[in-house]
Amino acid sequence: MGLAKRVLQGDVRATARLLREVEEELPGAIDELKVLYPHTGKAHVVGITGAPGSGKSTLIDVLIDAYRKENKTVGVIAIDPSSPFSGGAILGDRIRMQRHATDEGVFIRSLATRGWHGGLSKAAANVIHIMDAMGRDVILVETVGVGQAEVDIMNFAHTSLVALVPGTGDWVQTLKAGILEIADIFVINKADKQGVNEVEVELQAMLQMGAPSAAAWKPRILLTEAINNKGIDDLMEVIRQHRESLIASGRYEAYLRERSRLELVEVLKSSLMDRVSRMATEDDYVEKLIDDLASRRVDPYSAASDVLKRIVQEGKF
Amino acid sequence: MGLAKRVLQGDVRATARLLREVEEELPGAIDELKVLYPHTGKAHVVGITGAPGSGKSTLIDVLIDAYRKENKTVGVIAIDPSSPFSGGAILGDRIRMQRHATDEGVFIRSLATRGWHGGLSKAAANVIHIMDAMGRDVILVETVGVGQAEVDIMNFAHTSLVALVPGTGDWVQTLKAGILEIADIFVINKADKQGVNEVEVELQAMLQMGAPSAAAWKPRILLTEAINNKGIDDLMEVIRQHRESLIASGRYEAYLRERSRLELVEVLKSSLMDRVSRMATEDDYVEKLIDDLASRRVDPYSAASDVLKRIVQEGKF
Repeated sequence: MGLAKRVLQGDVRATARLLREVEEELPGAIDELKVLYPHTGKAHVVGITGAPGSGKSTLIDVLIDAYRKENKTVGVIAIDPSSPFSGGAILGDRIRMQRHATDEGVFIRSLATRGWHGGLSKAAANVIHIMDAMGRDVILVETVGVGQAEVDIMNFAHTSLVALVPGTGDWVQTLKAGILEIADIFVINKADKQGVNEVEVELQAMLQMGAPSAAAWKPRILLTEAINNKGIDDLMEVIRQHRESLIASGRYEAYLRERSRLELVEVLKSSLMDRVSRMATEDDYVEKLIDDLASRRVDPYSAASDVLKRIVQEGKF
Repeated sequence: MGLAKRVLQGDVRATARLLREVEEELPGAIDELKVLYPHTGKAHVVGITGAPGSGKSTLIDVLIDAYRKENKTVGVIAIDPSSPFSGGAILGDRIRMQRHATDEGVFIRSLATRGWHGGLSKAAANVIHIMDAMGRDVILVETVGVGQAEVDIMNFAHTSLVALVPGTGDWVQTLKAGILEIADIFVINKADKQGVNEVEVELQAMLQMGAPSAAAWKPRILLTEAINNKGIDDLMEVIRQHRESLIASGRYEAYLRERSRLELVEVLKSSLMDRVSRMATEDDYVEKLIDDLASRRVDPYSAASDVLKRIVQEGKF
């Protein structure tokens, strides 16, 4: 039986293998993805971002518990943007999460930048599709939320959580970086720390300035102490409310379409980039152009234009 | 007289205007860049990265002073990767640098992700070229060093500095993220703080493990207190030594070629991406494909393949 068929039956080992084959860009892996695609779109995707130290991993850990108590199966995608090379930088945070490793209802996968040559956004979309197709009810996507790639990934989530901690000053930077626009729920974690009220008051003020009052969903602010399991029931309830609001208002359909557009662009970009990167390392013609560039006999724009014409002429994609 | 010609004469206002026109992608700006390109390749480009709080900005501030005392003109490019939306997130750090604003020999420019649709790496390359063409002797490029884009930018520098501070634990993360491979000089800044020795010893151990012993340049470790102007003379001397080593060993030429390859790829990618992004928002054919994607009647890979065929058929780039 093909890998895709076993993934559709929820087979954990087949899913892990398909993820590896997609990551390694093995021939045939894309064909398996194509088989899975019509069966996707069922899982609820929850994005969780926040600065390092905001307790995202603990939060995800207790959310996994809460969903498992509701008999829902969970997929977790932990994305590590700080790691262009090694993939190991923030895995230490995730040791706690590993206690779910023996539970077949919890499927955890880390995504480092390395190894996903096609770009992190496309990779995240693929992993979401695969976990969705294997029948996971909920998919939690953790990012650190610093770069454009991570913001793009948050766009693939149905519900976006931002974790903040009082007293670090980090939350102001997070907000300034445009997180306001994409957050559905703010979770002030470690709410036993000093400074919770200040964060809440300032956050509320910023939300009142920024958000259109006619929006179907107004971003909510919740306090949690994930490590002591406090506030998690309320958080689960608000996530549920957000999902219901999305569906009731018709925005779920609109978001689905927007995500399809984003994914099409990501797949196109990465296919083109692959072609361009291969040309720039394999093609004698390009080697000659690079010599001319290095010695300033041609400029990068004229050189790029030459290469594009060549791609079109040769029909090489 | 054309903008490019005035830039070549070192005209600060013309340079600021060309940078704006390039940023806004005004017609003609690329033509001005093409005029400048043959005159580039003279400046020494020094990349400086480090986690937030490592004192990069203060370090750059005192380096500016040191270069000005040698009667060298300086360009500074401060890159703000944390800011996909607003561009304002870490500008506060740079207030100190602004005291150079009245010195015509110092040209400072911030680069936020926003506004440079073609990608941050291409933007950085363009700003480096323009400052180079205006005759700046030294160009300091500051990044925060978290994502692939920032690592790509560091590849455009001739000499790469990594700023670390004792006692925060951040430096370990920085190193794990692959900075070891690209750093020529490690600057342990705020060397009056506790924990300097530990950082130095661990760093030295990591370098001995990682670096090939036959390399023409072995990464150096320096201690500074930028805010008290301590250690800066030594740092200037080591930067000079690194440049001389590059030239003497022939690696300068090799690096120039590698940077040309990178830039060609960046320009190609961004041209292609522009085209793809425009198609995905303007083209009825693509709108129909997105409907099919959202309803799972087609998968993203088959859809992308259709779009690519269409681009080639229409010769639209």
